[in-house]
Amino acid sequence: MKNDTITSPKGFLAAGLSCGIKKSGKKDLGIICCPTGAKAAAVFTTNKILSAAVVVCKQHAKSVGIEAVVVNSGNANTCTGTGGLADARRMCELTAKGIDCKPNQVLVASTGIIGHKLPMKHITKGIKAGTDQLTNSASNGSDFAQAIMTTDTKTKQALRSIEISGNEIIIAGTAKGAGMIGPNMATTLCFITTDAAISKPLLRSALKQAIGNSLNKLTVDGHQSTNDTAILLSSALAGNKPITQTSPGYKKFASALSELCDDLAKQMALDAEGATKMFTVIVKQAASKADAVKAARAVADYDLVKCAVHGNDPNWGRIICAVGSCGVRINPEKLSCSIGDIPVFKNGRPVSFDPKKASRIIAQKHHTITIRLGTGKAQDFCHACDLSREYVAINADYHT
Amino acid sequence: MKNDTITSPKGFLAAGLSCGIKKSGKKDLGIICCPTGAKAAAVFTTNKILSAAVVVCKQHAKSVGIEAVVVNSGNANTCTGTGGLADARRMCELTAKGIDCKPNQVLVASTGIIGHKLPMKHITKGIKAGTDQLTNSASNGSDFAQAIMTTDTKTKQALRSIEISGNEIIIAGTAKGAGMIGPNMATTLCFITTDAAISKPLLRSALKQAIGNSLNKLTVDGHQSTNDTAILLSSALAGNKPITQTSPGYKKFASALSELCDDLAKQMALDAEGATKMFTVIVKQAASKADAVKAARAVADYDLVKCAVHGNDPNWGRIICAVGSCGVRINPEKLSCSIGDIPVFKNGRPVSFDPKKASRIIAQKHHTITIRLGTGKAQDFCHACDLSREYVAINADYHT
Repeated sequence: MKNDTITSPKGFLAAGLSCGIKKSGKKDLGIICCPTGAKAAAVFTTNKILSAAVVVCKQHAKSVGIEAVVVNSGNANTCTGTGGLADARRMCELTAKGIDCKPNQVLVASTGIIGHKLPMKHITKGIKAGTDQLTNSASNGSDFAQAIMTTDTKTKQALRSIEISGNEIIIAGTAKGAGMIGPNMATTLCFITTDAAISKPLLRSALKQAIGNSLNKLTVDGHQSTNDTAILLSSALAGNKPITQTSPGYKKFASALSELCDDLAKQMALDAEGATKMFTVIVKQAASKADAVKAARAVADYDLVKCAVHGNDPNWGRIICAVGSCGVRINPEKLSCSIGDIPVFKNGRPVSFDPKKASRIIAQKHHTITIRLGTGKAQDFCHACDLSREYVAINADYHT
Repeated sequence: MKNDTITSPKGFLAAGLSCGIKKSGKKDLGIICCPTGAKAAAVFTTNKILSAAVVVCKQHAKSVGIEAVVVNSGNANTCTGTGGLADARRMCELTAKGIDCKPNQVLVASTGIIGHKLPMKHITKGIKAGTDQLTNSASNGSDFAQAIMTTDTKTKQALRSIEISGNEIIIAGTAKGAGMIGPNMATTLCFITTDAAISKPLLRSALKQAIGNSLNKLTVDGHQSTNDTAILLSSALAGNKPITQTSPGYKKFASALSELCDDLAKQMALDAEGATKMFTVIVKQAASKADAVKAARAVADYDLVKCAVHGNDPNWGRIICAVGSCGVRINPEKLSCSIGDIPVFKNGRPVSFDPKKASRIIAQKHHTITIRLGTGKAQDFCHACDLSREYVAINADYHT
């Protein structure tokens, strides 16, 4: 069995199982283990309300030699007070005990409902079982990918293999969707493993850049979670000469990592809550990078645009309306918009186009909307998905 | 027949009819007339993309002695270039001709789809018929209220009667909903008539204040239209001693006007696209007014909160998450939240509460969510509605 999971890079074991947090009986506890100790880089949510897991994970991420990551789904451990903090620490202790390391060598993440105490009885049993089951098999890697899911309908996994000075280096990652996703470092739970030997500062800068151009450019509903955590672990077992400078080798690594994260972001968009398709908003000719980011995000988060995309309707009026109201500098005489490769609005005027052809473009699994603001040279993009009745159903019927 | 329409204040005539802009055959052209000439105050959208109607209306609003307002629904006359500007001016000319005044004494507004030329043949006929049909009857007032509707399922009308120094003064208004509504002066088309004698600066300040506390505090989908226009006309025929100072009389007038606008805002929330209910987010103990506005708006626009409201789910976790991510100053140890009068989160901790009772509160036509940030004394609010499958259906199936 080809292993394209997080246990594919040398030095990583994983496990994923159901310990009873989710009433559905689905997997809800996962562990990644790097027995030789890994370098870690991590980015976290900027929400002012933080999961206890994020608070503890931030502290432990500073340790040298990370040996494990323990994750539960089905409960966010957020707004749970000092008891919640003790529980997050306890998760690390239990994992450390199971694999014989120190608690601060264990990172922790949670996802799920806010405001409920973790069922520690289940979790204790789950961590015990999980640490006993750790292997480097593909099926264990997949089990972990399943264990971090919430409303996802499928796992999100990606792998990239590169060669640096004759050594094969593997980077593998998994992320969860599927709602409460709005770009602001980071946007979800995401775990990436690699066997590249690389210095910690470069590991960190590669992760920041990769997340910035991928997960951080994805919006499902513009909502930033309290639990977002992206962790990159490097076992340094690939045998490559350690990357310690922004060399061609580093660039190759960083670029593969960015590609992998973009792959995960697109999988998330396509499997977002209720989504039937994704689209990418590209903003060009902006007066500043900030304007480009803002305009792309405004269009991507505009419910009326998302509904029009859902209905395969080339309703460029809503796109222009979103751009006009989001506060960025525009040149009304230069403002232009294309759906796929079809210009629908040019230099401030509607262009006559074949609506059926445009509708067919929107009906695809992934299309682009390109907007030119006509005020400069900056550009940016944002991935998004359509807004469906199903999104409402999922989020109105999901009960606390 | 009791007249609680815009023709109720002395000096106003109206008409509303179908001229063929809407394929459904529903009313799509309305005229208000003040033969003696009215003082006008107006506020407009701050979207950078403006309807041609807004551009022309802004110019004409400066005129002395406004004699008419002409409005069409079914077509926004936005992104229609110089031809669109000529059409908006032509609407004023035709109306002026019908009632014998100058074109710049006529205000104009449009609402509907963006990017299509106005069907001037229909509109020409419609304005001719409309100016012939002007009366001060309640049914004509109602016809006007119908003629400005887009996806509204019912008309929005409100009336307030006050006494100032022995004279009865009437204020009456109508507004249209129902989507693309996000607070930023103004948020919709809104037309208000009054027979109060009042100076133009005070008329303007009363309108700004009233809209600021009502229509401008309403969000349906956070989307600001390109056509928003609120117009207040005063015929000065009530016989009161003209209000020229911020006297008790002025305060009475301003307060009645605010109430009327709040009434219209609530009617709009309850009849918003797909809405089954409304809710008001109240933010207290904010470090600044701006923080209070931002937090109230963030919660009110948060799709996951709107879905939870739709499902009668007291999901305070989503509320806290929205507050935490919107960038305002919060004190995590003081942060509190109530649904109706039920505290669900207090001083940073969940409160145990009866979920069935909370659910019954949310199931009401209108409930409040109160959030205390614990960082100051400022407060503000925002009206909103739930997000339903129907909103998606309306906006995915509405085709350009």
